[in-house]
Amino acid sequence: MPKNAFYAQSGGVTSVINASAAGVIETARKHPDKIANVLAGRNGIIGALTEDLLDTSQESDAAIAALKHTPSGAFGSCRFKLKGLEKNKAEYERLIEVFKAHDIGYFFYNGGGDSQDTSHKVSQLGETMGYPITCIGVPKTIDNDLPITDNCPGFGSVAKYVAVSIREAGFDVASMARTSTKVFVMEVMGRHAGWIAAAGGLAVEKEGDGPHIILFPERKLDEEKFLARVDETVKKYEYCTIVVSEGVQNAEGKFLSDAGVKDAFGHAQLGGAAPVVANLVREKLGYKYHWAVSDYLQRAARHIASKTDVEQAYALGKAAVELALSGKTAMMPTIVRTADEPYTWEIGAANLADVANVEKMMPDDFISEDGFGITEKCRRYLQPLIAGEDYPPYKNGLPDYVQLKNIAIAKKLPSFDLKL
Amino acid sequence: MPKNAFYAQSGGVTSVINASAAGVIETARKHPDKIANVLAGRNGIIGALTEDLLDTSQESDAAIAALKHTPSGAFGSCRFKLKGLEKNKAEYERLIEVFKAHDIGYFFYNGGGDSQDTSHKVSQLGETMGYPITCIGVPKTIDNDLPITDNCPGFGSVAKYVAVSIREAGFDVASMARTSTKVFVMEVMGRHAGWIAAAGGLAVEKEGDGPHIILFPERKLDEEKFLARVDETVKKYEYCTIVVSEGVQNAEGKFLSDAGVKDAFGHAQLGGAAPVVANLVREKLGYKYHWAVSDYLQRAARHIASKTDVEQAYALGKAAVELALSGKTAMMPTIVRTADEPYTWEIGAANLADVANVEKMMPDDFISEDGFGITEKCRRYLQPLIAGEDYPPYKNGLPDYVQLKNIAIAKKLPSFDLKL
Repeated sequence: MPKNAFYAQSGGVTSVINASAAGVIETARKHPDKIANVLAGRNGIIGALTEDLLDTSQESDAAIAALKHTPSGAFGSCRFKLKGLEKNKAEYERLIEVFKAHDIGYFFYNGGGDSQDTSHKVSQLGETMGYPITCIGVPKTIDNDLPITDNCPGFGSVAKYVAVSIREAGFDVASMARTSTKVFVMEVMGRHAGWIAAAGGLAVEKEGDGPHIILFPERKLDEEKFLARVDETVKKYEYCTIVVSEGVQNAEGKFLSDAGVKDAFGHAQLGGAAPVVANLVREKLGYKYHWAVSDYLQRAARHIASKTDVEQAYALGKAAVELALSGKTAMMPTIVRTADEPYTWEIGAANLADVANVEKMMPDDFISEDGFGITEKCRRYLQPLIAGEDYPPYKNGLPDYVQLKNIAIAKKLPSFDLKL
Repeated sequence: MPKNAFYAQSGGVTSVINASAAGVIETARKHPDKIANVLAGRNGIIGALTEDLLDTSQESDAAIAALKHTPSGAFGSCRFKLKGLEKNKAEYERLIEVFKAHDIGYFFYNGGGDSQDTSHKVSQLGETMGYPITCIGVPKTIDNDLPITDNCPGFGSVAKYVAVSIREAGFDVASMARTSTKVFVMEVMGRHAGWIAAAGGLAVEKEGDGPHIILFPERKLDEEKFLARVDETVKKYEYCTIVVSEGVQNAEGKFLSDAGVKDAFGHAQLGGAAPVVANLVREKLGYKYHWAVSDYLQRAARHIASKTDVEQAYALGKAAVELALSGKTAMMPTIVRTADEPYTWEIGAANLADVANVEKMMPDDFISEDGFGITEKCRRYLQPLIAGEDYPPYKNGLPDYVQLKNIAIAKKLPSFDLKL
């Protein structure tokens, strides 16, 4: 008898996580003898704990296919990490109750490091609590910090957004610099690692191209050196464009974004490394500046997604189901790079035990010696990840993104008191 | 004997001003009997005053065609307004000297309100200083505030960027709201008029869609009413997305963006209505928030330009040359809307005297009664302006924008002491 599959999305969403969902659901639909239905958790694992399960069989093939071009988490995501079994047995017992009640034999969890830790814990349920469940993680994170896999779905599209945007802004500033703005600062995501900031460096193709300076979280801001470089750049090219990671720290190890900016009430103002950097330039050099903070726009920008990223996100969803059907469990499909140029890749697999809670940092030799740019090695790694365009369809001048019906399955169990 | 034409770009650049340049240059190239060469001013009128003239005949047909998909000002722009003749005769005399020295008989100036004032002043040179010159303005401004013309090239593409971006961010926030960010604030340009902010409203297609609130510069921020609406929206839909114009003022008539935010040194921090609004939400309602400031990204985003906008920008450049060749002067071609749906338009013409220094404000009945959204009338006006996509070509995953050779014509005159 075919079992049902549970699928859910976890952590910060991306512009291609729904492509992975499409990969999971479309592949499952091809194997009705093994998988009866895919029940999606509303808001990740929370949906499993609260028995809030969405019946994907009620979504048309067209709607599921449209997920391939729709950003964000179609079933809702969550920031919620299961504690260890010894610390919160009640939650694990509840999961098993829900899985049993809905005849769930497969568990697919689409997320980053924390989420794969959850996948790993769930995969241990079989042994520790006597409930057999096939458990496969599906990688996803714009932070690009999962180990083993060549890269993480979601990252390539943010990388493309950042490189495209800083190139465009650079053209703008270059044409205005004579009588107006000379310094432009763009803030990008990346609290711990500079992967996303590094992607800005792809916009540099020849001497003089911006961004002229990248500030990485891996390098504490040396104000003097930074200001000297800004000044030198403006004197040489008439303007200077800068990509700053939200995670950049000052010499004292404090995030720039909360390094003392206070609002009118005297409260610390959260967020914004870019205005701090821009202010520094104004204070010390006096140049006219502008700054931008892309925030969620960068990770939601499906309109400028990387085709490579979309394809890999879909392929990983598909591979997750295939791994499960081939009898594997406690694994996560990965991207294996087989060549840089032309870029070729294939699907591999890793054990969840080797993935959970391991953070892949950016190699030190990806940052140029002066600390303000990327190396050729970094470029070789990043370049293929932004390759290709994969435009969504448009209606009335806007991307025609799908919103699913998200009809919940009737609950069979008493409610569960979940502490969020 | 054919005369040379002067062409220059002025004011804040857009993602389609170079399409107008292509329209001017390609059309001029078709009439070598009338126009010998197009000399582009480097940095707008400054190029004329300093005799810094770029020889466009050195640019290939392919390079000029590539301007159609390249954002920013390919010849450099400027923020510089000619004073009246009575106040600064020296500058006008210098212009005539330069025009004579380079046999310039046509003057095409591509810009917004201030720039068309310059065009108008130059057009008066013929009468007042005895130098015959055919003078045609080419409209351009993301602010959409030129009179007579249905809309201004550059605006439609910013409008599209804003509507696409807030839709995408809305999908993101909706999927995270259960356990994370509930309020998202996106700041857009528009110091005096809410045209750009209004465009965010196009993303709303049905009840519940974001942006749920738009803050216009035309309405002073009523904190209490605003916070009540945010709270109500979060309670109803679990999240709330907000578009705020950079020009929004508080109840006392001060820009939010400089309403008392101080940096660590106690200096007022410039820029950022979004963080101020977001902070207000946090202070008073306690919701988790994120904010974005698009700044130059929005006006440089050629990758998501409106096809209608690109076509109109090109058509206006072409029409400017055709007006000149038909013997007209002191005019500016315009867009005339002939129907809303399906949208049809044709080229018209206005006298520069009627355009210079006239600012078209957004009609009051474009803002909904509660002050937080747009009306159907506004939507009917805006909708066609974002219609269609016109993607640039890509190379290595990035838009392949052209950088011209920009070879200057040899100077024939002594230098001129220009006060910038």
